[in-house]
Amino acid sequence: MSDGPSGDQGGRVDGLDVAVLQHRLARFAEARGWEPYHTPKNLAVALSVEASELVEVFQWLTPEESARVMDDEESAHRVRDEVADVLAYLLQFCEVLGVDALTALAEKIDRNELRFPAK
Amino acid sequence: MSDGPSGDQGGRVDGLDVAVLQHRLARFAEARGWEPYHTPKNLAVALSVEASELVEVFQWLTPEESARVMDDEESAHRVRDEVADVLAYLLQFCEVLGVDALTALAEKIDRNELRFPAK
Amino acid sequence: MSDGPSGDQGGRVDGLDVAVLQHRLARFAEARGWEPYHTPKNLAVALSVEASELVEVFQWLTPEESARVMDDEESAHRVRDEVADVLAYLLQFCEVLGVDALTALAEKIDRNELRFPAK
Amino acid sequence: MSDGPSGDQGGRVDGLDVAVLQHRLARFAEARGWEPYHTPKNLAVALSVEASELVEVFQWLTPEESARVMDDEESAHRVRDEVADVLAYLLQFCEVLGVDALTALAEKIDRNELRFPAK
Repeated sequence: MSDGPSGDQGGRVDGLDVAVLQHRLARFAEARGWEPYHTPKNLAVALSVEASELVEVFQWLTPEESARVMDDEESAHRVRDEVADVLAYLLQFCEVLGVDALTALAEKIDRNELRFPAK
Repeated sequence: MSDGPSGDQGGRVDGLDVAVLQHRLARFAEARGWEPYHTPKNLAVALSVEASELVEVFQWLTPEESARVMDDEESAHRVRDEVADVLAYLLQFCEVLGVDALTALAEKIDRNELRFPAK
Repeated sequence: MSDGPSGDQGGRVDGLDVAVLQHRLARFAEARGWEPYHTPKNLAVALSVEASELVEVFQWLTPEESARVMDDEESAHRVRDEVADVLAYLLQFCEVLGVDALTALAEKIDRNELRFPAK
Repeated sequence: MSDGPSGDQGGRVDGLDVAVLQHRLARFAEARGWEPYHTPKNLAVALSVEASELVEVFQWLTPEESARVMDDEESAHRVRDEVADVLAYLLQFCEVLGVDALTALAEKIDRNELRFPAK
């Protein structure tokens, strides 16, 4: 298979590359005719809705409880599911606007290293 | 600089790998003593706050205006900056909980392909 | 029922006063032993989670469709339900911090009238 | 002044009534020609953006620190300001859709009293 997460080369599986996943998401939306809904505004809003769904898992937990959230099978699944949704909308947002998320982050870390010097 | 986006091999630059960026972010927080603040709950909340800052760019725009947001230099910079912040908190969240964001997304796309068959 | 919205004096019903509702919410949480969870931080987070659930109703709608959302019985119920949740957490947040929401808003409108003179 | 928060009848001042504030907000937007931007979708999104700005005040605080947030003059002002913004957008949202926020909340509390019986 060309783009599924199925092959295996020493731990890392096929398809686990941001560009490949971004491309899979674009074809997924295209094949379902969802593109008219995928304006940058709607995708940014969808991203924030999914981020809130991730927050909801932790809403009433103490900081200590929040650190043990993966011990519970159901919470762990929910966390991974919401992480996937957040990343999916982030990559789709980047796709429609031509933003390279990894470059943006690398440049931001560079700026932050100047802005907040390590102690 | 050892791991910044500085090298160049045919378009893609060094350090533009999720695992490398995630590791840079972890060392960045560690070097500044920020780890006690980086509970999973706080990082999820920070992610949602940054997602809202991205939404803010589009808040009063029509769908059509939102599609042209990168035409304006200042908006384009703001978009890339907020994308970086969202991805930064997502990767830091994943780091503290041991979640592999790319695997989570690949698996979610697999599930969605079954759940929403293409027309 | 003693403090429910049951009486009627010319259109407005009993209990439809912010202070009364805020008091009902406080007693409701107290009677269920929920007070330890109701830190200002948790209530602010819960408010933002509920605001996102309201946004979710409109997520994929065009501006025009969003204006007709109350025409559909189910969407209308969902909207009223999420409005109630947002207001509930806002009032509970204000209760625990001793903030008077109506005074805060009246003062903000005063400031905005100076800041944005009418055309 | 007819609708400003200026009079005083035993502690409560004029204009501190939800319906009056909602009306002031509507006239404020109308006088500035902001109505075309105030679609239900945009107002719900603006509400969630403001809710996130309130969360931002608490983002890195421990539960204990969050309880003392009003002790600091600057944080206290920020909290009141964001509470005002959240309430302003909630009331404007309700205005454009004809939702009565207080009735919605009273009905929700009624439902919750059945759903979560007190211990």
